[in-house]
Amino acid sequence: MIPINRLLVKKFSLPKKVSYKAGGIDHLGTSVVTETDPQVEKILKQKLTAILPGSGFIGEETPIEVKDYNWIIDPIDGTLNFASQVPIFACSIALWHKNEPIYAHVSLPLTQKTIHALAGQGLWLNNQRVKPVKKTTQKLFITYSNVGNSQDQVRIFQTILKYTSSPRSYGSSVFHGAYTALGYIDAGVFMNQALWDIAAIILLAQEAGLTIKYLSPPPDLAQDNLKKYQYSLVIGEKKLTEELCQSL
Amino acid sequence: MIPINRLLVKKFSLPKKVSYKAGGIDHLGTSVVTETDPQVEKILKQKLTAILPGSGFIGEETPIEVKDYNWIIDPIDGTLNFASQVPIFACSIALWHKNEPIYAHVSLPLTQKTIHALAGQGLWLNNQRVKPVKKTTQKLFITYSNVGNSQDQVRIFQTILKYTSSPRSYGSSVFHGAYTALGYIDAGVFMNQALWDIAAIILLAQEAGLTIKYLSPPPDLAQDNLKKYQYSLVIGEKKLTEELCQSL
Repeated sequence: MIPINRLLVKKFSLPKKVSYKAGGIDHLGTSVVTETDPQVEKILKQKLTAILPGSGFIGEETPIEVKDYNWIIDPIDGTLNFASQVPIFACSIALWHKNEPIYAHVSLPLTQKTIHALAGQGLWLNNQRVKPVKKTTQKLFITYSNVGNSQDQVRIFQTILKYTSSPRSYGSSVFHGAYTALGYIDAGVFMNQALWDIAAIILLAQEAGLTIKYLSPPPDLAQDNLKKYQYSLVIGEKKLTEELCQSL
Repeated sequence: MIPINRLLVKKFSLPKKVSYKAGGIDHLGTSVVTETDPQVEKILKQKLTAILPGSGFIGEETPIEVKDYNWIIDPIDGTLNFASQVPIFACSIALWHKNEPIYAHVSLPLTQKTIHALAGQGLWLNNQRVKPVKKTTQKLFITYSNVGNSQDQVRIFQTILKYTSSPRSYGSSVFHGAYTALGYIDAGVFMNQALWDIAAIILLAQEAGLTIKYLSPPPDLAQDNLKKYQYSLVIGEKKLTEELCQSL
């Protein structure tokens, strides 16, 4: 993955041609695309499906092909940030067997952090096994990602405000999820997400010992229209996650 | 300033002891403090007042002393980010003569960007004169910073949603302001800010040719209680800024 990180860091500081995807939800965060997004996805598709012959591929920028084993990719999560030189974006890679994540690899090229997990094998940061930091702070740091309509967005914002005076949306679900798994963020609220937004981070969270609670039906790769923004969930410590889910 | 940036980059990746300031507004974004904040402010206070003997000093972490010429400092704007390894925080330095900014220096250590301006002399990025990028995108990228109560926060969020589907709060007013001045962000909404949050960025915006419109009375250094979070303003292109101000 290292050449991909180098490519992303290099492209990050160059001027970018931004375009907007047609169709779908008219949401700034999901409609922006640069020339680098499909470029990275193509490289990953080629390399990953070669590692596991017969595997399927589910990505934001190329056609979907579902098999028993599937690579689920977001080449650049946080494209608006990437395009605007905001140093928060992630490259997210997951391998699922049917509806179960078995491997996750998230890189945050600008902060030189790579987080990976293999089901049942714990969480790794820059190839070192890590135990998530148990925060002892009195105040809650909660992030949200929401590709919803205005009314929905206001409702979510208002609900999170009951728990923290400073709800944050950094514009990358994968970043929110990875930082929650690492214990830097107390909880992440993810509303109306696509599969590639959550496929890696739910395994990171699981391996960090966190609670993952769906507000929508969980992904069903055989049944779902996988190009839809349809998954809603909360990730965090058990008590906080349950409380948030009840309020949302 | 380079040694300060190096210090901040080094401290960024180390575990940090976080504490919460007593008193004032109970807002996560403003109440978090690390041991690095007062450390940086003390270094800056010493060096800057030595450059301009007789100058006053207005900072978040040390007592305020107002003179005709004043250094206005935020050693780490975005302390919650800094403490949580989120790569968005800034060190903000401004020199004002009475109520007029004459010099501004903002550094974003993690992205290696230093932006400075001298009144009437334009905007500089990493010591190169820059003209802000005129964006031609159809969609608006608007950020907000708001140290207000819940009701106020919901109102601001709801208003910005009329202009963009993705209001963002990255947790550093200085970052929002600097990126708006550089043209990466279309407009920044700044509600209930302290003087050190805005002292540098309004000069950057001015030198970028942007419009700055106050929703509160503008700073009056001789009259105001300078420890208060009392300034509200919008920065951006003229038309958008005026429209936002009318809606807010």
